[in-house]
Amino acid sequence: MFCAQSGAVISESVVDYDSRCDGVLLDPSDHLIARQDASSVGRATVQALKHCVEEAARDSRFSPGSVVGIGVDATASTPVPVDSTLQPLSDDERFRDQLPASAWLWKDHSSFAEAEELSAAARRSGDWFTQYGGSYSSEWFWAKVLRCRRVAPDVADAAATWAELSDLVPAWLCGESSVQRLARNICAAAHKSGYSVSGNGYPPRDFFYDVEPSLAEVWDTLNVRHYVGSERIGGLCPKVAEAIGLPAGIGVAAGTVDAHAGAIGAGVEPGALVKILGTSACTIGVSPIDQRLPAIPGLSGIVEASVIADHYGLEAGQAAFGDILAATVSLFGEGASHETLTLEAENFQAGETGLLALDWHNGNRSVLNAPQLSGAVLGLSLGARPGAVYRAMVEAICFGARTIIEQIAGGGVDVDRVIVTGGIALKNDLVLKTMASILGRDIVVASSAQAGALGAAINAAVAMGVYPDVPAAQAAMVPAPRDIIHPEADDSAVYDQLFSLYRQLHDGFGGLVASADYSRVMQDLAAIRTAVVERKSAKKPSL
Amino acid sequence: MFCAQSGAVISESVVDYDSRCDGVLLDPSDHLIARQDASSVGRATVQALKHCVEEAARDSRFSPGSVVGIGVDATASTPVPVDSTLQPLSDDERFRDQLPASAWLWKDHSSFAEAEELSAAARRSGDWFTQYGGSYSSEWFWAKVLRCRRVAPDVADAAATWAELSDLVPAWLCGESSVQRLARNICAAAHKSGYSVSGNGYPPRDFFYDVEPSLAEVWDTLNVRHYVGSERIGGLCPKVAEAIGLPAGIGVAAGTVDAHAGAIGAGVEPGALVKILGTSACTIGVSPIDQRLPAIPGLSGIVEASVIADHYGLEAGQAAFGDILAATVSLFGEGASHETLTLEAENFQAGETGLLALDWHNGNRSVLNAPQLSGAVLGLSLGARPGAVYRAMVEAICFGARTIIEQIAGGGVDVDRVIVTGGIALKNDLVLKTMASILGRDIVVASSAQAGALGAAINAAVAMGVYPDVPAAQAAMVPAPRDIIHPEADDSAVYDQLFSLYRQLHDGFGGLVASADYSRVMQDLAAIRTAVVERKSAKKPSL
Repeated sequence: MFCAQSGAVISESVVDYDSRCDGVLLDPSDHLIARQDASSVGRATVQALKHCVEEAARDSRFSPGSVVGIGVDATASTPVPVDSTLQPLSDDERFRDQLPASAWLWKDHSSFAEAEELSAAARRSGDWFTQYGGSYSSEWFWAKVLRCRRVAPDVADAAATWAELSDLVPAWLCGESSVQRLARNICAAAHKSGYSVSGNGYPPRDFFYDVEPSLAEVWDTLNVRHYVGSERIGGLCPKVAEAIGLPAGIGVAAGTVDAHAGAIGAGVEPGALVKILGTSACTIGVSPIDQRLPAIPGLSGIVEASVIADHYGLEAGQAAFGDILAATVSLFGEGASHETLTLEAENFQAGETGLLALDWHNGNRSVLNAPQLSGAVLGLSLGARPGAVYRAMVEAICFGARTIIEQIAGGGVDVDRVIVTGGIALKNDLVLKTMASILGRDIVVASSAQAGALGAAINAAVAMGVYPDVPAAQAAMVPAPRDIIHPEADDSAVYDQLFSLYRQLHDGFGGLVASADYSRVMQDLAAIRTAVVERKSAKKPSL
Repeated sequence: MFCAQSGAVISESVVDYDSRCDGVLLDPSDHLIARQDASSVGRATVQALKHCVEEAARDSRFSPGSVVGIGVDATASTPVPVDSTLQPLSDDERFRDQLPASAWLWKDHSSFAEAEELSAAARRSGDWFTQYGGSYSSEWFWAKVLRCRRVAPDVADAAATWAELSDLVPAWLCGESSVQRLARNICAAAHKSGYSVSGNGYPPRDFFYDVEPSLAEVWDTLNVRHYVGSERIGGLCPKVAEAIGLPAGIGVAAGTVDAHAGAIGAGVEPGALVKILGTSACTIGVSPIDQRLPAIPGLSGIVEASVIADHYGLEAGQAAFGDILAATVSLFGEGASHETLTLEAENFQAGETGLLALDWHNGNRSVLNAPQLSGAVLGLSLGARPGAVYRAMVEAICFGARTIIEQIAGGGVDVDRVIVTGGIALKNDLVLKTMASILGRDIVVASSAQAGALGAAINAAVAMGVYPDVPAAQAAMVPAPRDIIHPEADDSAVYDQLFSLYRQLHDGFGGLVASADYSRVMQDLAAIRTAVVERKSAKKPSL
C-alpha cells in the first residue's frame, strides 16, 4: 500500500502461492512447459490485500475509507482458459490437475512451433506482427491458445474464452463473472495479442480462422472494451471488500503487465529506458505518440498506449537473466551459492577468465526471437573454475542487455538514461557494476523494492483522479534513485573487445548472418586474456 | 618385469616422483607451463627397477642373471637442459628451483609463439616440417629450446646440450656422462625434432641459425648416432647395477616415446591403429616403408623407423583427453567424482543432453595444431546438470578421436582395427562404449595394464636378440585382447548427426574454413534432442 500523495510505502505483504513448486507447475517430460494455478494467484491476492490493510491499521491515523483505489499488475502473456463465469478451467472437476487447463505462464515455451506457424501465416497474409519485430513469440497469447487446441482439444472446447491473468485478477476483485463484460487491458492485449488502439483492434478474424478455425471463436470473445492501466474498470465487490477489510465500491484500475508497471514505478519516460532485472529481464521504454517510430527489428513490441497513454510503449526482453545465474549456482551444486561464486568471480578482472558465454539458456527473445537457441560457453581450459564460469554468465546477460539497447538506440529512440529495477538490481552489485562497464554508461538504480506494485498504485491514483496523468503521478510518487553505478573505463575497453566477439557469435548462431569467419574467435579471446593478465601482473607491486 | 618368452608379467612397481605437485611443476601465473624435475625421474626409475627385482626374487626360480635387458620409455617431447656430464641444470645450485632449468614436459604449451615462429620460418625456407602436417608444435623440442633462450638466457647459456628425457634415462642407466656419446632415439628425434633417417638428419643448421643463432649451437650437439628403440645402446653400469640388484653389463635398449612403446605393447601393426587413452590421447599407426605415404595434413608426424624399424610411424594426438574429464569433475567440486558423474551421465541417451562440446581445453594438437584453441559447450538450458555436461565432454573427446581417425583413413592409410590402451581404456566403460558408437566400429581393448612398459620390454627383447624383429616379439609377447566393445546402432545414428555439428564447429573455430553458417547449429541440436526424447518416451511402457 502506497501513499497517493508521496508514494511512500504504508504497508506491504508477500504471499506465496499455495500450489506446488513455488507456484510454477512443471512437466518433467517437457522442460519447455511452465504453468500456474490461476486460482491460487487469486487467493494470494486477497490474502496480500488483507495483510496490507491489517498492517496499515496498526497506525491509528489510517482509515480504510481513505484508500482511493486498487491497481493490479501480473505476469504476461499468461493466458488462462476460463468458463463462462470467468473461473479457471483448472478449478473444474473435469480438468483438475491437467496442465493445459492451468494458466500458461509467460515463460512457457512449449508452443514454439505454433508461434512459428502464426509468424509464417502473418507474413503470408498481412504482416500482422510488424510491431513485434516481424515474428510472434512462443511466450504469447495466440501461440498458447493454438497449442492448447492441438494438445488438449477438450480443454480448448470447454473454454468460454481465454483471459490474461492481468485481466482476471482485477475482474475477480470487482466480482465480475461475465465474459462479455471482462475489461481487457491494452498493455497485455497490445504487447502479446496483436491489439492496436489506433488500428482495427486485433488482426482480422479471417487471419486466425485460416490458421485454425476455432481461433476465430476465441477472437469473437475478445471484442470487448480495452482499457489503459490508468483507467478505472469498476468498484471493489462486497464479498472481496469484506474479506480484505476495505469499503465496497472503491475503485479498481485496469490490469497492467508486471514489467510495464515496474517501468512506471521506476520512472520510465521519454529518453529513460527501464530494465527490470529478475529471473528474466525486460526492457521498457516510452516515446511520445507524435513522433512516429520505425519498426525496430527484434523488439518484442512497439505499441500505442501500452505503458502510458499518448505514448508508444516499447518492450524487449531477455528470456532468462537471473535464472541463468541461478542455473549456474544449481549446476555447481552443494557448496555453491550466489555469494561464494560472486566472491570467486570478483577475483577476476574483465577479460581475465578467458571465457565468453551466450545467455540463451531459455532461448533468445530480443532481438532474435528464437526460443530454440541455447546457452553456450567458450574458452574453457583445464583450469576453469566455477567463479569464472559464473562471471562469464554475468557478463553474458549484460552483453544481451547491450545488444537490446543498441538495437533500440539504433532504431532512432533516444536513450539518455538506463534505470534498473527488480530483484537483481537490488541485490547483485556484480551484475550492476558489470552492466555499467559493458554498457559504458551510468546505471541508475531505482529505489522502490516493489516498483511493479508502485507502478500499479500510480495507475490506480491516476484512474481515481488524484493526478491528471501518469507523468504527473510519477513526479510525485517515484522516489529519488537508490544509487548510480559508474562504468570503469579500463573494464569498458576490454568489454568492447569481448562484446565484439559476443556479437559475432550472436549474429552467427542467431541467424542474423548466413555465414561468418570464426577462425579467430578463440585466439582473440586468448589474446584478450593474455593482455589483461600481463597488465595485472605489471601493476602488482613486486614482493 | 616381463617374461621375454611369453610376455607374462613377472613383477611390477610404480614409484611416485619425489618432487611436488604429483611430479609436475606448475606456475600459477602462466597456466601453459608444465615442468618436471628430471632427477626425480631418474631416482624413481632406479627405485622401480629395484622393487621389480626384489619382487621377482620372492619366487625362488628367479635369478637376476636371467634378465636379458632393460627397455625404457618416457614422455616426449620433454627436453631437459643438461651440463657437459648429462646432469640436469636444475641440479646445479645456480638454477635450483628455476622452472626453465627443469624438464619441459610435453604438455607445456608456453612456447606457442616460438612454435609459430619456427613454422613460419620453415614455410619460408624449405618446408622442413611437412612430415608434421606442415607446422611445428609448442609441445616439441625446438620450440621449447627457443623459448628458454628468450625467457631464461642464463639457463640456455649454461646448457651443454638439450636431451630428451627418453634419452637421458637409458644414458644414466649406462652411466654415460658424455654429450658426444649420448645415444639419441629416433622415435623422439623424428617425431619431435625433425630428424629423418633416410634424409639428411635434422633440418639444416642454417635454418635454425636464421631463426636464432644459438639454436645452431644446440644443433651441433645433436650430430651423434641415433637408434631405433629395439637397438642396444650399452650395458648397465656397475653403480646402478648394484643399486637395483642386477648384474652389471646387461643390455640397455634405446629409449622410446611412451605412446609409441604403448602402441607396440598394445599390438600396433599395419591396419591396426592404437589409441593410448590417458590424460591426453595419442593415436599411433605403422605403415610398411615400401608404401609411400602422402603427407596427411594435421598429423603430428609421419616418419620412418620411429615406432618399428622398416615402417613409417604415424602419430596424432589429442592434447587433453582424460584431463578434460578430470577438469570437469574438478569444476563441479566437492561431491562430484568420476563415479557419480558417470552414473548421472549414463541416465542420458545419445543426443538427449542437448549439449555439444569441443574438446580443446588444452588446445588442439591434431588435426588443427592450434594450442590457443579452447574448450566449449553449447546447448546449455536452465536445467543443465553436471552429469549431462560430463557426458558431453565424454562425447567430445570421442568426436576428437573420430576426427583424427577419419583424417588418417582419408589420407590413404588402412584402418581395419582400433586398439585402445592406457588408463582410460582400463577403467572408463562409458568412454569406450561412447567411442565405439561414435566411431561406428568395434573397439579392441588391449590387455596389458602397462602397455608402455611391455612395449619397452619388447624393444629390449629384440635389442638383445631374443627375437629378430618387433613384429615377431609382439606375436609372442602381446596378450590376447581384454575385451571388444561393439557400437550401438541407434546411438551411432544419433552420433553421426552430432558429429556433423561437431565438425561444423571444429572446422569454423579451428580455421579449416574461412566462412561457416552456424544459423542452424543450435536448432539442429534441439531437434536431435527432441527426437531422442520422443523415441525414448514412446518406448517407455505406460504406467
